Amino acid sequence: MTVDTVAEPASPTRFAAAIADLTAAFGNRVVTSRAVREQHGNTVTWIANEAPDAVIYPQSTEDVQQVVRICAKHKMPIIPFGTGSSLEGHVNAPQGGVSIDFRDMNKLITVHAEDLDCVVQPGITRKELNEQLRDSGLFFPIDPGANASLGGMASTRASGTNAVRYGTMKDNVLTMKVVLANGEVIDTARRAKKTSAGYDLTRLMVGSEGTLGIITELTLKLSGIPEAISGGRCPFPSVEAACNATILTIQSGIPVARIELLDALQVKALNLGSNMGLPETTLLLMEFHGTDASVKEQAERFGDIAAEFGGGPFVWTAQAEERTKLWEARHNAAFSNFQLRPGAAMIATDVCVPISRLAECVTETQADVIETGMVAPIVGHVGDGNFHLTLLVDLKDADEVKRVKALSDRLVKRALAMDGTATGEHGVGQGKMKYMELEHGAAAVAAMRAIKQALDPQNILNPGKLLPAG
Amino acid sequence: MTVDTVAEPASPTRFAAAIADLTAAFGNRVVTSRAVREQHGNTVTWIANEAPDAVIYPQSTEDVQQVVRICAKHKMPIIPFGTGSSLEGHVNAPQGGVSIDFRDMNKLITVHAEDLDCVVQPGITRKELNEQLRDSGLFFPIDPGANASLGGMASTRASGTNAVRYGTMKDNVLTMKVVLANGEVIDTARRAKKTSAGYDLTRLMVGSEGTLGIITELTLKLSGIPEAISGGRCPFPSVEAACNATILTIQSGIPVARIELLDALQVKALNLGSNMGLPETTLLLMEFHGTDASVKEQAERFGDIAAEFGGGPFVWTAQAEERTKLWEARHNAAFSNFQLRPGAAMIATDVCVPISRLAECVTETQADVIETGMVAPIVGHVGDGNFHLTLLVDLKDADEVKRVKALSDRLVKRALAMDGTATGEHGVGQGKMKYMELEHGAAAVAAMRAIKQALDPQNILNPGKLLPAG
Repeated sequence: MTVDTVAEPASPTRFAAAIADLTAAFGNRVVTSRAVREQHGNTVTWIANEAPDAVIYPQSTEDVQQVVRICAKHKMPIIPFGTGSSLEGHVNAPQGGVSIDFRDMNKLITVHAEDLDCVVQPGITRKELNEQLRDSGLFFPIDPGANASLGGMASTRASGTNAVRYGTMKDNVLTMKVVLANGEVIDTARRAKKTSAGYDLTRLMVGSEGTLGIITELTLKLSGIPEAISGGRCPFPSVEAACNATILTIQSGIPVARIELLDALQVKALNLGSNMGLPETTLLLMEFHGTDASVKEQAERFGDIAAEFGGGPFVWTAQAEERTKLWEARHNAAFSNFQLRPGAAMIATDVCVPISRLAECVTETQADVIETGMVAPIVGHVGDGNFHLTLLVDLKDADEVKRVKALSDRLVKRALAMDGTATGEHGVGQGKMKYMELEHGAAAVAAMRAIKQALDPQNILNPGKLLPAG
Repeated sequence: MTVDTVAEPASPTRFAAAIADLTAAFGNRVVTSRAVREQHGNTVTWIANEAPDAVIYPQSTEDVQQVVRICAKHKMPIIPFGTGSSLEGHVNAPQGGVSIDFRDMNKLITVHAEDLDCVVQPGITRKELNEQLRDSGLFFPIDPGANASLGGMASTRASGTNAVRYGTMKDNVLTMKVVLANGEVIDTARRAKKTSAGYDLTRLMVGSEGTLGIITELTLKLSGIPEAISGGRCPFPSVEAACNATILTIQSGIPVARIELLDALQVKALNLGSNMGLPETTLLLMEFHGTDASVKEQAERFGDIAAEFGGGPFVWTAQAEERTKLWEARHNAAFSNFQLRPGAAMIATDVCVPISRLAECVTETQADVIETGMVAPIVGHVGDGNFHLTLLVDLKDADEVKRVKALSDRLVKRALAMDGTATGEHGVGQGKMKYMELEHGAAAVAAMRAIKQALDPQNILNPGKLLPAG
């Protein structure tokens, strides 16, 4: 998509001494060309690109330590960069600084098959990881929409369609190597599956968006590739009926692996984009993992529950080909959405509410979209109460942008009023900083600031993100 | 058990002004009698009782805020107290202060059945909670050995026999109300099932042992009571065979709810204590949760795996009565152990290692116990790589105590050398502070200290616990 404004390139003298020190240490692995710098500023939302002053490509934890020490000396900001797929401006450089691009630290280091874990570098993407794991019979379940890097996924506490069964990044990182603002490297925990030994530095770092430390290695929990998978789709007469069926499915203890809501407009987009021929009504897409017998039983039980709420027919299959077609269409939802308004830019936002409030939140949002005169399909990880509103926007129309921003603001406030959160999986970045105090209250934000100040007293780690200026 | 020494009662003038202020505010809910104070110092291990100067019984979050404000003014330490069942000296008052006993804050406040969560006060115990939940069809799965309070369980990041399936306290707390050292109250998160909005204050507080804040309310994830449960027991020729069967069970994706290892000595104790008539060899106790069909399938598959490693016969049942008898015996293991050495005191310790190292860690520990000339059965939550060594000790024999402490020290160092942790579920308290730097490294401990200093600059929240003096 297009970018509305590009910040002026930083003054060549800003951080010149730091860049000279970095170049002395790393040679041509430090890049300052405008094109490369701009690639490393955020470009996938309406947040303006704010390019860093330099980009560096480390090859080891020791490299990162050296970068941090040089930057600490010069008080130069450091912005960790994975694949740049974040949606809330996480990789922008509002105060300038150096972007640490983990492109060259993208290895799967070790697989501990008996322990169901593996050790990776932060630059590996989720698809690369799963391709390399394939022979082990294991997989890493967390699947955000983009083919994000594992370091980025940990930093934003990412999740995706499997979270209802497998949890989010907070549940699937055992330990990390993290370089702190003082240049020291720590392991956030041991590789044991559980521990009661001290503060949970792992969970503190997961979701901290590069503001407390820089992840240089991750030990991830893996899961066995299920022996059998069944999946299917089920139309419902309303969002409320689909949500109620979801609630009862989970209450009944059916260990559903995926349960995704698509509203009628989203289904229309899939039909346009992937020629799916789906009924254009509220739809749940399901997936069940287990043995042959258990996935059959789960699907049958879900079908009964769906019927109770007027849903159906539930069409399901254990055949890989049909299932894959459906989930590929789901994963391509973002691209299909362009068909609904060719030429428009796409702005995705996400909120999460207690599941008992989900139907209300989605339905009110649908009405708000119509009232605002926008085109905006909804897709939700409804087992978690999490959903995305995908806004198709003409960014050149200032009035429309204003209306859409107001719509997005109402969505967040609606979710917060329902005891929900401003973001279920996209993170805070620059885009949602303004809601932190409304969500957490002044005292909790002050506690977060105290932690940030304690671990990064010079505020060099990804400044201007997550915590609003105090 | 007996207590080796009782610290002198604090000087009556110590914190006299603070106690006067507390008494002015709370009247006879402030107690300073020696008997009550000593009850609130730790008495269940070889750690000496260190009584607080006063005990207070708050009735609300506002009460706790007022206590904290008075204590902050006088720099008086505050020690939160649930049921006093902690094993590592968490409730001791090495620097004096006031013990906050949550006896009167023990209510189940709300059940959100659709959201599978509930809101409780910190003083409710896990058994009380499950009794009150019974009619809802829901339960709270975390089951440490003692009937601990939920506030204490969150503070120590407790787990138990179900953790392999349901996780630990870190996975089952959605949000908490916490009073900070400055007297402010925060909610650590919203009630939404997942979030990416800022630092994970919930997980930072879980396991922080009252050193970062005082929990006054918890929102807990609940699970549906399984439709069907099957359970059983399976003897193995060796610890190694039992551990290998455990590894393959988990790798195969069998969603086992409990998988407990008992060594031959532990089985002997159960036979003595509960008249179980079990074969006195390494034993796995199993439990499976699901539908009638799936618990049958899980049990059959486990039986096949056990046979592969020379285990069996696997005797299982879906009948509640037989199952209950077995698990009651398991839960009474601690009491049964006294039969192995009548008159001895019992000191329980726990470590956790990657499951691939578990057999080695248990076997070496068994040999060490024999070499040391001790009686010490082993029971393990082996799905997590976590096990307990229960030492039967004559605390009046100074030489024996010395040998046992050395044995316990070797156990922790053995676990750490295997990438394990000094404690899987008991916590650090006073007992394991000395291992924090060995486990985490100086830089990580320094980071923990910086966080502690940021949130509790006067060091009034449970001082002398978790973090060794810097």
